[in-house]
Amino acid sequence: MKLDLCPSPALYQHYKSDNDTVVVVDVFRASATMCMMLNKGASAIIPVSNSELAKQYKSKGYLVGAERNTKKCEFADFGNSPFDYTPEKVKGKEIVFTTTNGTRAIDVASNCKELLIGTFPNIDAVADRCLSRAERVVILCAGWNNRISIEDTLFGGALAEKLLEKADIKFDSDSIRMTYELWLRVKNNLHEYLKLSDHYQRLINNSAVGDIDFCITPNSISIVPVYNKMDKKIY
Amino acid sequence: MKLDLCPSPALYQHYKSDNDTVVVVDVFRASATMCMMLNKGASAIIPVSNSELAKQYKSKGYLVGAERNTKKCEFADFGNSPFDYTPEKVKGKEIVFTTTNGTRAIDVASNCKELLIGTFPNIDAVADRCLSRAERVVILCAGWNNRISIEDTLFGGALAEKLLEKADIKFDSDSIRMTYELWLRVKNNLHEYLKLSDHYQRLINNSAVGDIDFCITPNSISIVPVYNKMDKKIY
Repeated sequence: MKLDLCPSPALYQHYKSDNDTVVVVDVFRASATMCMMLNKGASAIIPVSNSELAKQYKSKGYLVGAERNTKKCEFADFGNSPFDYTPEKVKGKEIVFTTTNGTRAIDVASNCKELLIGTFPNIDAVADRCLSRAERVVILCAGWNNRISIEDTLFGGALAEKLLEKADIKFDSDSIRMTYELWLRVKNNLHEYLKLSDHYQRLINNSAVGDIDFCITPNSISIVPVYNKMDKKIY
Repeated sequence: MKLDLCPSPALYQHYKSDNDTVVVVDVFRASATMCMMLNKGASAIIPVSNSELAKQYKSKGYLVGAERNTKKCEFADFGNSPFDYTPEKVKGKEIVFTTTNGTRAIDVASNCKELLIGTFPNIDAVADRCLSRAERVVILCAGWNNRISIEDTLFGGALAEKLLEKADIKFDSDSIRMTYELWLRVKNNLHEYLKLSDHYQRLINNSAVGDIDFCITPNSISIVPVYNKMDKKIY
């Protein structure tokens, strides 16, 4: 199996191939939040990249999670904290969801063969799904306004390590090679290293520090959210 | 002084600020080749991103260096090997120059405050020039068809280390933080690590192995090529 990493949605066109399985990762926090929605019983997620569209859904009676620049949008029911989504609120419901970066990444890759949502809390489940079905996996980092993020990139290194432990994996570009090498350097000190990142500081500044540990701790969730091209929902 | 790194020309718009000094790096081999042209006495370099335009210059009597996909273009006088450019051929002459990636990177950043050409062979001279004049430095990696290259990224880490040794430098994004961390991991084993890169293989496959050592050995040249916005030439 081939493995690649695209560090920014703005570079996706230069990293894609036919028949790709794409793992969209937005470590802080959209990926973990989507895993949590489904884990708490939501029936589907409707990702939208545009907050105006999310507002229209809200006016039609949908539950809406919406975040811009780390903060919950005023019109929304939920923000981008995984802990906003409790079974009482979401069980059996479809949730419309838009975030600064995560839903944009889904948008650019929505025509790939299979699109999965991956992050540290579901890393083993994502690795197993890739190994059982994929020909070529591209880890697509959501980043921040098309800039590269430490936390998303390092998830790529972590997933590469998981896959290498279980199968014969060929790295398909310099991007994944460098990411894996960096992961080997910092993996034993991940939380401390992430404190250097721009987005860690944004979360601290917006009182979202409680989400950080959840978002970088592996395997609290065994669900892999999968994007359905037909109805553009995530199940 | 602030320091940032843009790993691909396609991301430059997301990394630029006003008053940037941009260091364009294409380790294999355009940066070293441009340093060599000036070091061997060329009076100026005329960078063009389009090979058709280079061909037109040739028909007007200019000396032309042109490379696509690691090979010299048929119509050109020189390819992209630093050793093509001898004093006998280039002294006092203007050289039109186009390469697969390096001249494209110059093109996207040509409106910055100051554009320098940097690479391992002139790294100390580039560091000194940045320290003497720059407010914010962006290392712009040429990459390969907008994909990220190990060798260009690692030059960014090497330049960051040089600058940190001599001044109070603030890293301005996750991109330069990760690059510097990776540099610390591989710097004592640079040549071996570069063998993993896509472009190392391309050079081997095109009999350009002799250029590799020159391109990654520091400080054989003390010239810093500087782009002049007025006449669009490099001196």
